[in-house]
Amino acid sequence: MPKILIIHGPNLNLLGTRERSVYGDTTMDAINSDAVKHGDGYDIETFQSNSEGAIIDVIHKAPVQYAGIVINPGAYTHTSIAIRDAIAAVDIPCVEVHLSNVHSREEFRRVSVTAPVCAGQISGFGPASYILGIEALRSILEK
Amino acid sequence: MPKILIIHGPNLNLLGTRERSVYGDTTMDAINSDAVKHGDGYDIETFQSNSEGAIIDVIHKAPVQYAGIVINPGAYTHTSIAIRDAIAAVDIPCVEVHLSNVHSREEFRRVSVTAPVCAGQISGFGPASYILGIEALRSILEK
Amino acid sequence: MPKILIIHGPNLNLLGTRERSVYGDTTMDAINSDAVKHGDGYDIETFQSNSEGAIIDVIHKAPVQYAGIVINPGAYTHTSIAIRDAIAAVDIPCVEVHLSNVHSREEFRRVSVTAPVCAGQISGFGPASYILGIEALRSILEK
Amino acid sequence: MPKILIIHGPNLNLLGTRERSVYGDTTMDAINSDAVKHGDGYDIETFQSNSEGAIIDVIHKAPVQYAGIVINPGAYTHTSIAIRDAIAAVDIPCVEVHLSNVHSREEFRRVSVTAPVCAGQISGFGPASYILGIEALRSILEK
Amino acid sequence: MPKILIIHGPNLNLLGTRERSVYGDTTMDAINSDAVKHGDGYDIETFQSNSEGAIIDVIHKAPVQYAGIVINPGAYTHTSIAIRDAIAAVDIPCVEVHLSNVHSREEFRRVSVTAPVCAGQISGFGPASYILGIEALRSILEK
Amino acid sequence: MPKILIIHGPNLNLLGTRERSVYGDTTMDAINSDAVKHGDGYDIETFQSNSEGAIIDVIHKAPVQYAGIVINPGAYTHTSIAIRDAIAAVDIPCVEVHLSNVHSREEFRRVSVTAPVCAGQISGFGPASYILGIEALRSILEK
Amino acid sequence: MPKILIIHGPNLNLLGTRERSVYGDTTMDAINSDAVKHGDGYDIETFQSNSEGAIIDVIHKAPVQYAGIVINPGAYTHTSIAIRDAIAAVDIPCVEVHLSNVHSREEFRRVSVTAPVCAGQISGFGPASYILGIEALRSILEK
Amino acid sequence: MPKILIIHGPNLNLLGTRERSVYGDTTMDAINSDAVKHGDGYDIETFQSNSEGAIIDVIHKAPVQYAGIVINPGAYTHTSIAIRDAIAAVDIPCVEVHLSNVHSREEFRRVSVTAPVCAGQISGFGPASYILGIEALRSILEK
Amino acid sequence: MPKILIIHGPNLNLLGTRERSVYGDTTMDAINSDAVKHGDGYDIETFQSNSEGAIIDVIHKAPVQYAGIVINPGAYTHTSIAIRDAIAAVDIPCVEVHLSNVHSREEFRRVSVTAPVCAGQISGFGPASYILGIEALRSILEK
Amino acid sequence: MPKILIIHGPNLNLLGTRERSVYGDTTMDAINSDAVKHGDGYDIETFQSNSEGAIIDVIHKAPVQYAGIVINPGAYTHTSIAIRDAIAAVDIPCVEVHLSNVHSREEFRRVSVTAPVCAGQISGFGPASYILGIEALRSILEK
Amino acid sequence: MPKILIIHGPNLNLLGTRERSVYGDTTMDAINSDAVKHGDGYDIETFQSNSEGAIIDVIHKAPVQYAGIVINPGAYTHTSIAIRDAIAAVDIPCVEVHLSNVHSREEFRRVSVTAPVCAGQISGFGPASYILGIEALRSILEK
Amino acid sequence: MPKILIIHGPNLNLLGTRERSVYGDTTMDAINSDAVKHGDGYDIETFQSNSEGAIIDVIHKAPVQYAGIVINPGAYTHTSIAIRDAIAAVDIPCVEVHLSNVHSREEFRRVSVTAPVCAGQISGFGPASYILGIEALRSILEK
Repeated sequence: MPKILIIHGPNLNLLGTRERSVYGDTTMDAINSDAVKHGDGYDIETFQSNSEGAIIDVIHKAPVQYAGIVINPGAYTHTSIAIRDAIAAVDIPCVEVHLSNVHSREEFRRVSVTAPVCAGQISGFGPASYILGIEALRSILEK
Repeated sequence: MPKILIIHGPNLNLLGTRERSVYGDTTMDAINSDAVKHGDGYDIETFQSNSEGAIIDVIHKAPVQYAGIVINPGAYTHTSIAIRDAIAAVDIPCVEVHLSNVHSREEFRRVSVTAPVCAGQISGFGPASYILGIEALRSILEK
Repeated sequence: MPKILIIHGPNLNLLGTRERSVYGDTTMDAINSDAVKHGDGYDIETFQSNSEGAIIDVIHKAPVQYAGIVINPGAYTHTSIAIRDAIAAVDIPCVEVHLSNVHSREEFRRVSVTAPVCAGQISGFGPASYILGIEALRSILEK
Repeated sequence: MPKILIIHGPNLNLLGTRERSVYGDTTMDAINSDAVKHGDGYDIETFQSNSEGAIIDVIHKAPVQYAGIVINPGAYTHTSIAIRDAIAAVDIPCVEVHLSNVHSREEFRRVSVTAPVCAGQISGFGPASYILGIEALRSILEK
Repeated sequence: MPKILIIHGPNLNLLGTRERSVYGDTTMDAINSDAVKHGDGYDIETFQSNSEGAIIDVIHKAPVQYAGIVINPGAYTHTSIAIRDAIAAVDIPCVEVHLSNVHSREEFRRVSVTAPVCAGQISGFGPASYILGIEALRSILEK
Repeated sequence: MPKILIIHGPNLNLLGTRERSVYGDTTMDAINSDAVKHGDGYDIETFQSNSEGAIIDVIHKAPVQYAGIVINPGAYTHTSIAIRDAIAAVDIPCVEVHLSNVHSREEFRRVSVTAPVCAGQISGFGPASYILGIEALRSILEK
Repeated sequence: MPKILIIHGPNLNLLGTRERSVYGDTTMDAINSDAVKHGDGYDIETFQSNSEGAIIDVIHKAPVQYAGIVINPGAYTHTSIAIRDAIAAVDIPCVEVHLSNVHSREEFRRVSVTAPVCAGQISGFGPASYILGIEALRSILEK
Repeated sequence: MPKILIIHGPNLNLLGTRERSVYGDTTMDAINSDAVKHGDGYDIETFQSNSEGAIIDVIHKAPVQYAGIVINPGAYTHTSIAIRDAIAAVDIPCVEVHLSNVHSREEFRRVSVTAPVCAGQISGFGPASYILGIEALRSILEK
Repeated sequence: MPKILIIHGPNLNLLGTRERSVYGDTTMDAINSDAVKHGDGYDIETFQSNSEGAIIDVIHKAPVQYAGIVINPGAYTHTSIAIRDAIAAVDIPCVEVHLSNVHSREEFRRVSVTAPVCAGQISGFGPASYILGIEALRSILEK
Repeated sequence: MPKILIIHGPNLNLLGTRERSVYGDTTMDAINSDAVKHGDGYDIETFQSNSEGAIIDVIHKAPVQYAGIVINPGAYTHTSIAIRDAIAAVDIPCVEVHLSNVHSREEFRRVSVTAPVCAGQISGFGPASYILGIEALRSILEK
Repeated sequence: MPKILIIHGPNLNLLGTRERSVYGDTTMDAINSDAVKHGDGYDIETFQSNSEGAIIDVIHKAPVQYAGIVINPGAYTHTSIAIRDAIAAVDIPCVEVHLSNVHSREEFRRVSVTAPVCAGQISGFGPASYILGIEALRSILEK
Repeated sequence: MPKILIIHGPNLNLLGTRERSVYGDTTMDAINSDAVKHGDGYDIETFQSNSEGAIIDVIHKAPVQYAGIVINPGAYTHTSIAIRDAIAAVDIPCVEVHLSNVHSREEFRRVSVTAPVCAGQISGFGPASYILGIEALRSILEK
């Protein structure tokens, strides 16, 4: 069964405890197990790190095992050219997802440094953003 | 069966004939019939107009018949505060979709005037963006 | 009796139902009939459209029948150079009015594209803005 | 009889003598006596100063005697955060007025630092702006 | 005989009556009949609308009948990404013309949203701009 | 005993009555008497004015009597190059303090014109900001 | 026979050899002899220089011999206030022409420093731009 | 003998003691007595204030007694639209002078709000700037 | 005894050796032991890392052991939205401190990305900034 | 007798003929002979060129013969970093002069690239600006 | 033999596999062994990390072993003030190198945050940039 | 033996005499003779001009004689689109060099207009920058 990697960026490990009015009550573990259940012909694996370098390392190694990536780069969405370059450097498709609607938040959250090198971006649907991200990735992989 | 309205903005009637390297070969009719087929418990209806005013008129009347809206505002995404105000004025949820990845195109296509008042935005997955939009809307309606 | 035309721009037909915390509970019909009653020696007629082109058409024809215009261009205030040019093109005075105080809202609502070619602008007094607009127009016409 | 205070900012004492093509021939005294006459159930008092600090002092003391303020902050409109804070600090409503249409003048006159904390703004109707300001204030006080 | 379509944008129907110091005394009808007379081996047809949507509709249908378009988008030159996309979507060449020299007017009139997808732009020669536009189009069609 | 001067800028005389959700309930007099009590080997004197010119006058005369200044320039923080120049012109150290966290408020309150010529800045700790300002000044004076 | 001067700015001497995908295959000499042939009642003379100062010198002397100027200022279009001032200083009309469509190239080529003082601008029609420039100049001279 | 008024803005009373590396060793009194001596057919009087309002008051009254003004607005040069409006409001010519070369200092000192309404500006010659200012004023008065 | 955590960001481990004219001679160890000594009823612990991810990890775990945080985010102050989000995500108060006066340094050091989610900011007092930070934190904790 | 060089930049050779409403009726030759007459202990020589390079060459050679330079760089004031570097490279003082008040003209004429490396700038006094420039230079040379 | 450290930033470990049209076919290992061979009297050692913190750690320790650093900070060039501060903090010279010409790529790659504190920058020569970097460092070390 | 041309832009003829703290003590002649000596299989010729037009003329003719160009455009680096176009127009490679580190100087020196069309840029190594430029050019020519 082909595999998909979900990457959670910084602070997403606190989901369900942190600023719940913005990010909701669902924990990262709940999102992950929902994604695994949803799988839909794909084996879902997950990774979280608060470190930009560690996320880049994981993206570099992804093509060996995974058919594609669903990534929520968290705050690094807005600042990390290094993660952008890592995504551009690997041959597998990458879908960017966000829990909240980044377009209706602070000005600095409206610009995504990473989205231009992803296949596309999904933003604003809470935990469902990840499931939609898997669906989007599948639409690309099965084209 | 509850109903969902898909709104196509300006120039989308030319899909499949216009700048195919950017927008692909699928016509608007094909997208519409795929969406209707995908329905998934919802009755899908569709509308297209090149006129900002006509789109606003349709949004105003939508709450009477529809549970939610999937909208691709086309070029009006980047300029129409009037459509933004129309979306904000009606009580039903609205999901913004784009065929191409707006984040990897001209600078002026990266800013969405309408997204901040939508539930969320999906961008870059070709015709699949509409199907994902319906899924996203369902995840909101069924919450 | 000389006539004044009140023009309501996009989404103002929803007044009293839409975002009431911002725009208040009064409907457009109520505003119109208050204006007619207030008349004060002028015959008040009203027009609303969500279409930029239709508003321009009406402005073009106004000088034949009306001594002046009170206009709330709604969202087109901030984007429509075409309406601005229409106002500049006709010889009768035009007063711009807004229900809410545009200066205390989103940054993009602080700039008026149309105000520089109007006689003046009145903003922030709810339905009273229209009555004040008529008064202002009268002060110009009777000078 | 409740009282309203009209505050004139810097250089308005020169009205009727200064740049008459922009500001007209009416003197500040004429405006003041017209306002007093117009009163309409309110006792109108007036104040002028060229000093930012003196204007702030007067605003601070206003709530003790006045039901509301009509202010033409003159050039301080565009620069004085201190007057803005003073207006925000007192509980009575304040209406900002301008003789000329600030939207059709130099770029730097289009931004009002003080308007966001006023109830609203009236601009462009010459001496009539003050009378309209009193009317606007009354519409607020009598709501 | 091949055909060329001249499209006049918003407010151009008022030519000869509106702001004559800027736009001159010639009416749109006079411009049109001069163009028809000049024809020079082309059949000239003309269209005017104040509505962005109607202009887009006409551009969409143009390739069926016309070899090329001469367009004066009026105020939409500076705001309409939707008209830009329509021009880019059709296969026939389009020449942008302006009566006045847009470079010597207000700052916001110096940027053309539509010119980058036209073959070229001609600006500043009064009614002669249209004749030059037809000549320019012919130089492209006959290359 | 060496002396320290606390300078309060515009509107701070209203503390405890004005926008209490932002500035808290403590009055300026309470802050002053707390500061005097805290003294800690320094004689604390205080001054308030709403006038930029009066504040400059007091800064000019300060070196004769005071070892240092703790200043909350209020709204003048963001606009007064003249107060900045006055602080730079005198030889005694100056510490800038703010009750609220200026970094989490309106954009225009994030820039301090005066801070670059002060020894440092303390912002966000309510009345305690003044006590910390005295402590900071002492750390400089006793170095 | 009245005379027209064509001025070619920097690098245009390399036409036909330089970046042909942008500027085409026609040489400057071919453009010049086409212009001379086209003449149409005017005697056409031509000048080229890579030096800003030399171009200014020629513009200064032009009124003695020429009825008007067709100028392609090349790269100086975007930087030379000195050439702008020279054009403004002489009494004969000047038409600005460009081979390529400057509006569809790098951002810095979209701004013309010289166009505001010319009668008008023609851009994007290859060598035909010069012929259209002569026609445009004639329409001005014969008005 | 006709009279000229020299106005010194904020902090200039500290000249000779303040930041001598920037402003030099000469005191304001020395500058004033040099100016008086230089007089050259004019009676020189002087005024200094740190208060924007007081400077405006003095400018308002100047035309009664003085043929012209030499003003060093100090820090108000860069912020005071109110002083600008005062200068524009009076009929006598005003020359702006600066001790230091404002063009070679901090970015914010390069913009003069007041210079556009003065006859001209002289900057960078130390105390000699005032003498040159008187000369410049004389060249205007005696034209 | 309640505990406070001091977090030092990148390069602060070099204190006392690095750019001493800017940062002074005191080492990080000296600052730490002074802070421990000052304690004042709090147990002070310290942490330093050059890694953004490691700092986030430590902030996440802090609420279990610490009553509050004093943080000098070093260069990450100006770039790290991820650290900002971490501070916002935890429930304990955080005080931002800087050794140098960031307002008098390079433009890019004047903006703090992290300060808006801290309780407040203290900047410019050398090693004393940390002691003042502890005092500030105590004033919050004991409120 | 020591010598001073007056350098006139581009287009100044047309003085008295060019845009007289802006630059006045005096010719460059008249300015030069007035300057020579005014001499005042200095031998005045003059130079004009429309070429940036030629002006730089002359500045380079100036120190051999001249005690100082009075320069009106014309349009190069706003664009020429090369002339700026030339002025900075030579050891003799340079005074920048302008006939018109650059502060009251187009925005792009308000910035001087060259003034920061000159001793000072004099602007707005017509031909008298040159005489004042010589006086200013003398005040520097005789210090 | 003195030693030089080559530091490769994020994603450079993928060289020769990643976006070869931009970065070429040479691997990082090949670059490293070429550099070692070129050595030229210096012992070359190399380091690569995707982690900003790890790069800072290595820079901090470098002065103990190395005479200088050649660094290609990759994407951190454009974002890392922390690496900039680390380079500024150590006493040995640092040369910044880039494989591609950063000036001809995306706008955001044209700004280097780190270059101002390096001795200099070399950009655009592919693997040869590293050899040139060593040469440049040697020219500094042997001065 | 193939030939390389070194082009020195404006003011570089003054090297060794001009602002030596920035540009060092080495003269242009010394740089040139070092370059000739270093040759390394290439015949080095040199050219200097202060005139933008003369530099363009020389670039145009270079391909006939030279295999490549090393250019230090001096101040024209930041302003000359004309030199940029000349470099882009010729087929031989061009390397841009600077004596000082342009990234650590005034903001306006950080942008290079010419670098995007050069093969690469070398900046900051004093006279060695030229030698490195020759080496860089050789690495391109011998690829």
